Amino acid sequence: MHFFARRRPAFPGPAPASTIASAMPSEKEWIRHLERLFPARGRVRVGVGDDAAVLAGPRGRDWVVTTDLMIETVHFRRRWQPARAVGWKALARSLSDVAAMGARARYALVALAVPAATPAGWVRKFFAGVEGVARRHRVQVVGGDLSVAPQVVADVQVLGEVERGRAVRRRGARPGDVLVVSGRLGLAELGLACLRGRVASVRPVVKQALRAHFLPQPRLPLAQSLVRRFRPTAMIDLSDGLSTDLNHLCEASGVGARLEGDCLPVVELPQALGRRLRTTALELALHGGEDYELLFTLPPRQARRLPKRLAGVPLRRIGEITKKKQILLQETDRVGRPRLRALRPKGWDPFGRQ
Amino acid sequence: MHFFARRRPAFPGPAPASTIASAMPSEKEWIRHLERLFPARGRVRVGVGDDAAVLAGPRGRDWVVTTDLMIETVHFRRRWQPARAVGWKALARSLSDVAAMGARARYALVALAVPAATPAGWVRKFFAGVEGVARRHRVQVVGGDLSVAPQVVADVQVLGEVERGRAVRRRGARPGDVLVVSGRLGLAELGLACLRGRVASVRPVVKQALRAHFLPQPRLPLAQSLVRRFRPTAMIDLSDGLSTDLNHLCEASGVGARLEGDCLPVVELPQALGRRLRTTALELALHGGEDYELLFTLPPRQARRLPKRLAGVPLRRIGEITKKKQILLQETDRVGRPRLRALRPKGWDPFGRQ
Repeated sequence: MHFFARRRPAFPGPAPASTIASAMPSEKEWIRHLERLFPARGRVRVGVGDDAAVLAGPRGRDWVVTTDLMIETVHFRRRWQPARAVGWKALARSLSDVAAMGARARYALVALAVPAATPAGWVRKFFAGVEGVARRHRVQVVGGDLSVAPQVVADVQVLGEVERGRAVRRRGARPGDVLVVSGRLGLAELGLACLRGRVASVRPVVKQALRAHFLPQPRLPLAQSLVRRFRPTAMIDLSDGLSTDLNHLCEASGVGARLEGDCLPVVELPQALGRRLRTTALELALHGGEDYELLFTLPPRQARRLPKRLAGVPLRRIGEITKKKQILLQETDRVGRPRLRALRPKGWDPFGRQ
Repeated sequence: MHFFARRRPAFPGPAPASTIASAMPSEKEWIRHLERLFPARGRVRVGVGDDAAVLAGPRGRDWVVTTDLMIETVHFRRRWQPARAVGWKALARSLSDVAAMGARARYALVALAVPAATPAGWVRKFFAGVEGVARRHRVQVVGGDLSVAPQVVADVQVLGEVERGRAVRRRGARPGDVLVVSGRLGLAELGLACLRGRVASVRPVVKQALRAHFLPQPRLPLAQSLVRRFRPTAMIDLSDGLSTDLNHLCEASGVGARLEGDCLPVVELPQALGRRLRTTALELALHGGEDYELLFTLPPRQARRLPKRLAGVPLRRIGEITKKKQILLQETDRVGRPRLRALRPKGWDPFGRQ
């Protein structure tokens, strides 16, 4: 759920962000407007503005609820993404939001609209994809809605549970906290770049990248281990790319960060492929979307006892939280000297303004 | 939520139902497919196939969850419906599903996608509409998603609560049960017909019909009074029109019904207006969609003590449940003799087959 986090569109489509009417407020202004309109009261522990909402439940539990739209031509194309991958990702995105709160996912509702002439096989494969990721994470699909639309629209809601007060928010990171990320960064974006660039290679890295793009793995088991054993101070899932999601986390926490570029778990990008796709492993890692890895912060003492791998997923320290509200990237220049540069979020505002 | 009840489109748009690819299974086949794919297990009391899903909660309560898509050109047009009415209805539809289960609505998530060039004022008014109906029913909007799309797409989820085991389903109607409906039937459809026919009359009935179409009132207080005091055996909300929704209720319950045409609470339609719109009050009542009134069944003994008005809403006995699986309409012919005819659902299957 993103009321209203930037959501990187895989395919800006006929109306690219840059042409958007300037009358539209920025994302931040929308969040402020909607926080005022719908203030969190009563049993609502977390309302508008985080990865998911948190509702106080009975018996020491809180409910976590989230919703995530996925729209053809904006988030995927039927020409490129198989139906099963669209269904898988539609649910995986919302599961990742629940993981970002450190919660367990329990139930899902799936709303789907398709053009009237859509082959029945496409719809069946879409739901097979939903079922695949639901089964893997023991989530029960309990209902939904089916309708027609000019293009495919999917909206998936997930209900999860977490021990009372244990939901991890975007806010909460403190200066000195260590910044940690799971998995490998930029792999899903590389997969998308391969689709875009019509790279039909059998290289393992291409196959792996396409798999990451088609069938992302929400980090639910990792999130639960983290919450139980390490209590992250803040957490977010990487849906829009590291530079953008780190910015969300820092803004919500009122802090800055220093990233160590040399520590990022980048993909191994063969030079020829990088040239062909006009990108680098670092660019992919910094700005590539849809990895659905977890980015979180820990006090130094907790960070020291963090293993290199948790719940089967590699973890990497990639920097630290700073008091100054700025995100800096530390790189090593050609002669081996450290260099700092400001890192701007290259993510996407639904209304085209950062 | 309608996995996958027929959802009448206000505007069939460029691809009318009749041209839909015949490869697409019927609604019933989809429901069967999805019930098999996502069977209700464990804490899921009601899964795929009713107005909402029901999940066993702690402390003698069940949770009720539902989702409902609303898509521009399919369910509304921005040229005809003001932004506030679109927002109001987007939430009201889901609230009505919760009412149909006899539950209280608590929380909502609102996912909205708009074309990039949408004026900010439109989005603000949309949310003002959401806020209006949320406030009236004391529902808290706790989050959502905002994205771009080629046309406006809204998907609203509502979480509600009901005493354990008290949720009223579509199934449960028994032969001999009395069929009751709330409010007035066909008013919202009349409003839509006026918009379509460009009827700009100041007649009270037109104003009332437009209001019913723009700002439908989900029958939440009525539903709760009913469940507490009368325990309906089956209930559904009238979103697709009486003929279609009664058919859903009867199919789910494995029964038929006999409707008394003379008892229907039809609108007072001035003759000239009916001629101009080429419709009758009876047609509007039988097949008009989006009234969001409640249709429910009661054992005769309970029905006898039902007042004419409950929670401020008029109630009308309109027929009874029969063993034979057929829906019959009893009318009075021109010379005053009763006449029975089969009533076919004139609602809409998302994939064009009944």
